[in-house]
Amino acid sequence: MIFPGGLGEPVAGRPKLEMMAYLDHAATTPMLPAALDAYVAAARELGNPSSLHAAGRGARRLVEESRERIAAALGARPSEVVFTGGGTEADNLAAKGIFWARREADPRLRRVVASAVEHHAVLDAVEWLGRHEEAEVTLQPVDGFGRVDPDGFAELIRAHGDEIAVVSVQWANNEVGTIQPVADLAAIAAAAGVPFHTDAVQAVGQTPVDFAASGAAALTLTGHKVGGPVGVGALLLGRDVPCTPLLHGGGQERDVRSGTLDTPGVVAFATAVEAAVAEREEYTVRVAALRDDLVQRVRAAIPEAILNGDPESRLPGNAHFSFPGCEGDALLLLLDAQGVYCSTGSACSAGVAQPSHVLLAMGADDGRARSSLRFSLGHDSTKADVDALMVALPGAVERARRAGAWKTPR
Amino acid sequence: MIFPGGLGEPVAGRPKLEMMAYLDHAATTPMLPAALDAYVAAARELGNPSSLHAAGRGARRLVEESRERIAAALGARPSEVVFTGGGTEADNLAAKGIFWARREADPRLRRVVASAVEHHAVLDAVEWLGRHEEAEVTLQPVDGFGRVDPDGFAELIRAHGDEIAVVSVQWANNEVGTIQPVADLAAIAAAAGVPFHTDAVQAVGQTPVDFAASGAAALTLTGHKVGGPVGVGALLLGRDVPCTPLLHGGGQERDVRSGTLDTPGVVAFATAVEAAVAEREEYTVRVAALRDDLVQRVRAAIPEAILNGDPESRLPGNAHFSFPGCEGDALLLLLDAQGVYCSTGSACSAGVAQPSHVLLAMGADDGRARSSLRFSLGHDSTKADVDALMVALPGAVERARRAGAWKTPR
Repeated sequence: MIFPGGLGEPVAGRPKLEMMAYLDHAATTPMLPAALDAYVAAARELGNPSSLHAAGRGARRLVEESRERIAAALGARPSEVVFTGGGTEADNLAAKGIFWARREADPRLRRVVASAVEHHAVLDAVEWLGRHEEAEVTLQPVDGFGRVDPDGFAELIRAHGDEIAVVSVQWANNEVGTIQPVADLAAIAAAAGVPFHTDAVQAVGQTPVDFAASGAAALTLTGHKVGGPVGVGALLLGRDVPCTPLLHGGGQERDVRSGTLDTPGVVAFATAVEAAVAEREEYTVRVAALRDDLVQRVRAAIPEAILNGDPESRLPGNAHFSFPGCEGDALLLLLDAQGVYCSTGSACSAGVAQPSHVLLAMGADDGRARSSLRFSLGHDSTKADVDALMVALPGAVERARRAGAWKTPR
Repeated sequence: MIFPGGLGEPVAGRPKLEMMAYLDHAATTPMLPAALDAYVAAARELGNPSSLHAAGRGARRLVEESRERIAAALGARPSEVVFTGGGTEADNLAAKGIFWARREADPRLRRVVASAVEHHAVLDAVEWLGRHEEAEVTLQPVDGFGRVDPDGFAELIRAHGDEIAVVSVQWANNEVGTIQPVADLAAIAAAAGVPFHTDAVQAVGQTPVDFAASGAAALTLTGHKVGGPVGVGALLLGRDVPCTPLLHGGGQERDVRSGTLDTPGVVAFATAVEAAVAEREEYTVRVAALRDDLVQRVRAAIPEAILNGDPESRLPGNAHFSFPGCEGDALLLLLDAQGVYCSTGSACSAGVAQPSHVLLAMGADDGRARSSLRFSLGHDSTKADVDALMVALPGAVERARRAGAWKTPR
C-alpha cells in the first residue's frame, strides 16, 4: 500500500490498492491469503457436517479440527468453542442467552452489568434486555482512559452480586484501544459466582488472550478482525455456563447455536486465528512501533491533538485522537479524498449523528467527542501508510478547522 | 460423479469425488464455481460496508448490487432483503422477531401458528416462544401427503385471527419434498391482517418463487441450498412488517439485523441465487426426469417401498421412501459403505434417535417413520448417481431387513 505522495490526488493508472493508505484495520482487516486458500479448498469439498455419510463426516472432521486449532490458540477446550455467524451474534448470545438461562433458573437474577464503553453489539443487546425483558441494567463507568476500575467493580459485585445474571466487559475497546484489566474483573465476578463475558473481538492477535487463564466464563471473537472471513465468529463458553440459544433448530453446537456449520468459513477462521496468535509477538513489536511513530508525528504536526485512551495499556495498532475545532466526519472525508482511510469510531455506527458513547463515557464533552478520528494499523500496514497520512492530515485539519469555525457551537 | 459399479466397494486409487453418488443435495449442494469465484474476488477487495471511506463505499456497492440481484430474482424490492447468517437465523428472526414486535404493539397477539411439518429452525423457535415467552402455539396439521389444507387454515384464522402474531408455513418440505399451497394460505392470512412467513430454503431454484406474488410477509432463503456459500442467507421482509431484532448492535440491515455485512458471502450468494433462478426451468425438467427414473427403478426393485410426500406437487429433486421392515439409519450406513450418500431426513437432526416429526404428522406410524430414506438430486446429479444407487440399494434393503427382523418390535 504505497501512497503516491505529494499532491493528494491518486496517480491515474496505478492499481487501486497501491493508491490508498488503509488505516481502518479495526473496522475490518484484509483476509490472509492462507485463510482464503483454506476457504477455497474446503468449499470444493462437499458435505454438511451434520450428515452421517462419508461426505458429511469429512466436513465434520474439518470443523472439529478447526475447533481444536482455535481452542489451542486461545487456551480453551475444544468443547468450549461455539461457532457463530460473527462477533455481534456471539455478543448477543452471551448477553441474552446467559441472562435468560440464569434468570429462568433463579428469578432474582435480573441484573445485567456492562461497561459503559462496550461495543453496540453488547450495549444494545443489554439495553434491549432492559426494555423488553425487564432486566435491571447497570452500565459500569470508566475513567478518563476508558478503563473500568476493579475496586468500583468489586463494590458493585458486593452490593448486587446475588442479583446479577451476567456481566460483560470488553477485553479491549474498539474505538480508543484501551485494554481492560479483564483478569482482575473476571476474578472478582467468579468469586461471587457471576458469569463474566468479555468481547475480545479487537484483542485476539493483538494482545495475549488465554480463555482459561482469563477466568472469563464466555469470550467473543470474530474472523474478519484477525485476517479471517466475515460472517464467522465464535463464543468461547465454559461448559458449566448456562446459555439459552438465540437460534433454535437442528441442535448444532451443543444445542446452543443451531444452523448449518459453515465448514469453509470455519476452516478459514481457524487458519487466521492460528496465524494471528502465532505471529502476535512479532506483530505487536512491529505495529506498535509504526503506531508510536504515527502518534509522535501527528503530535508534532498538530500540537493541539489529544491522544485518547490509555497511553500504556492499549492495542498496538490503535491511535485515536481528538482534533479540537474539527468535525471528525469532515476530517474523515477530507482524508478519504486523498486516499487515506480511517474512521471516526466504530464502523458499525458510521454515519450516525450521535457523538461516540465511548468518548462521552470517558468524560469528553460533545465537541471533543465529535472531533475524533481513529487510525488503526494491521498486519499489512507499512511506514508508507503513515507517510501518506502525514502528507494529508495537516491540510485536512486546517480545512476542517476553518469549516468548523463557521458553525454555531453546539 | 461416476460410481465404479458392480461390487459396491470403491476402486482403490480413484479420486474420491468419482467414487461416490451424492444423493443428499437437500442437506447441502456443491458451491457453484461462479459463486466461489465471486467470493474470492470480493474477499480480495478491502473494506467494511459500514465504513464511510472509499474502501467501505466499494464494499457497500457490492452488497447493494447483490441485494438488487437477489430482489430481482425473487420478485422482491431491494429494501425487503435482510441479509442473515443463514436459513436458521432467518427463520428464528421471522418467528421470534415478528411475534415480539406484534405482541409488544398489542398484548392480545399471543398466538403463533406453524405447520406441524416445519423445519426445526421454525418448529423449535416457535416451541421456545411457547415455553419461554408465553406464546400460545398452534401446530397446524397436514394431510397424508404433508399438505396444509387451506380450508382448515381458513377456519383457524377465522377462529383466532385476532390473536395471531405470526404464521409460518414452509414453501416446500425439506424431508418429503411436498410443496405447500403457499399463495392460498398467504392470501387467507393477509385478508385477516396476519403476517405470513414462509421458509423457502428448499424451494428457491427448485420451483417458482416470487415474493410479491406469493403474498407472504416474510420469506427465508439460504445460500448453501442453491449453490452459494454456507453461513449466508436472507429474510425477505415486507417494509410494513414489524420485526424485533434477534441481533442488536451496529444497526445494519434496517436495524433488523446487526453485524458486519459479509461482502464476499453476500456477493457469492447473489451469484448463486441468480444462477439457480435463471436455470430453474431447465433444471426442473432435467432433474425431475432423473428423479422420476429413480422412483420408478426403486419401485421396480423394491415393490414394497412407499413413496412419501405429494406425488405431484413436490420438489423436482426429491424422492423419499419408506422401506418397511428396515431401519433408515442402517440403510443409510449400508449405502454409505458403498459410496452412496443420502439421508434419513433433515441433516440437522441426523443422529437424533427420534423418528421424523414430518412423517408422524403425515400419519405414518413409528415403524414407517423410522424406515425412511431421502434421496435428493441437485445441479450436478447424473444418471450415474441413480445407477450407483440402484446397484447398492437392493442388497442394502435385504440386509437391513434381515437385521431388523432380529429386533424386538418397538
